[in-house]
Amino acid sequence: MKKDVDKVIIPKPAIVRLSTLYVLLENLEQEGKTKIFSAEIGKLLGVPSHTIRKDISFLRQAGTGNGYEISILKNIIAEYLGFNKYKKACIVGMGRLGNVITTKNGFYSNQYAVIAGFDNNPEKLKSTRTDMDLYPMAKLKEVIERENIKIGIITVPQDSARKVAHDLIDCGIKGIINFSPVLIEINRDDVFIRNIFIAGEFNILSAFISQYEKNKL
Amino acid sequence: MKKDVDKVIIPKPAIVRLSTLYVLLENLEQEGKTKIFSAEIGKLLGVPSHTIRKDISFLRQAGTGNGYEISILKNIIAEYLGFNKYKKACIVGMGRLGNVITTKNGFYSNQYAVIAGFDNNPEKLKSTRTDMDLYPMAKLKEVIERENIKIGIITVPQDSARKVAHDLIDCGIKGIINFSPVLIEINRDDVFIRNIFIAGEFNILSAFISQYEKNKL
Repeated sequence: MKKDVDKVIIPKPAIVRLSTLYVLLENLEQEGKTKIFSAEIGKLLGVPSHTIRKDISFLRQAGTGNGYEISILKNIIAEYLGFNKYKKACIVGMGRLGNVITTKNGFYSNQYAVIAGFDNNPEKLKSTRTDMDLYPMAKLKEVIERENIKIGIITVPQDSARKVAHDLIDCGIKGIINFSPVLIEINRDDVFIRNIFIAGEFNILSAFISQYEKNKL
Repeated sequence: MKKDVDKVIIPKPAIVRLSTLYVLLENLEQEGKTKIFSAEIGKLLGVPSHTIRKDISFLRQAGTGNGYEISILKNIIAEYLGFNKYKKACIVGMGRLGNVITTKNGFYSNQYAVIAGFDNNPEKLKSTRTDMDLYPMAKLKEVIERENIKIGIITVPQDSARKVAHDLIDCGIKGIINFSPVLIEINRDDVFIRNIFIAGEFNILSAFISQYEKNKL
């Protein structure tokens, strides 16, 4: 098994879908469900069931006709995808959003830990938080290297977001979650970015609703 | 032109990509760029350039060999996709995240307005905010119907998120942005949901980084 896990390369869109599937399986497990069919998964995730079966087949798993065992599938996804392999994260921008996101209330999984926060403004570093250490930006490289942090979160204003992204990459960060309202593009194979666009979500919903209304005409 | 806009049905994944493209074009315009090629777009968005050309072709636009005119393409996307058609939104859960998200600092586009906030806790309704009205949950239906609101945002804790989603739908909401850490599935053709999973983003990045490391072996 170990050997397989090491060899399998899964396309990025499948990784994203399997990651969502993992959250769904966690939810279902909490609700006491033990088995699920690909057709149900497809319906719940809004993805064709053959896509789901194909995604799961990358994990060397096949449906049995009795559906998938939820706890097993969940663990296999985590193992093949390498969840929790890079558990430590840092955040740049300790304003209100930065503080909300790093508060342990379920916004990020218990399997990860945002252990360091950075800000340019000394006022923002005067916190009574005991769950993470706060530093001025000048300490970025030192802390990231010392703690071997691979994931960085950006919650700074729009005008400094790109610079912060490049600073993080220079310090060895390999994965970035960007909450600033600017699309950050990374032209490197070894660094990954997820842009969380709240404004974009409004546009997508407005488009979906419009399309539905059009279809009805 | 008007007739075309009304007829064209665009697949959902293309809508999502075109919505991201719109944000990219806005960014590029602010930086003073006027033209762009599909290959550049593809690189910036991490999508194959033929997919970009296909997406844009739904808008009855073809590249000219000289690339796309950014301002024109941006306006056409907004027009065909029906951005800003449903401008009013409400939010349920006026805790810290709800307050941060609805603060006009670029998290949502200026073209949309979160005009009403709801919470069960009377303490959370004691706000000095002048940019939105706050109401107890009992007013949900009355306010949504009166204001003809179609988009709802969920920022309540995990255990009440599903109930809130169904309440919103019962009140006539057609699009939901869910920030609670539970995956909400909607089994209806006429209602759309976007689940924003911060925990999932950590998993995705951890998986991308792991795959890259594996590939190198």
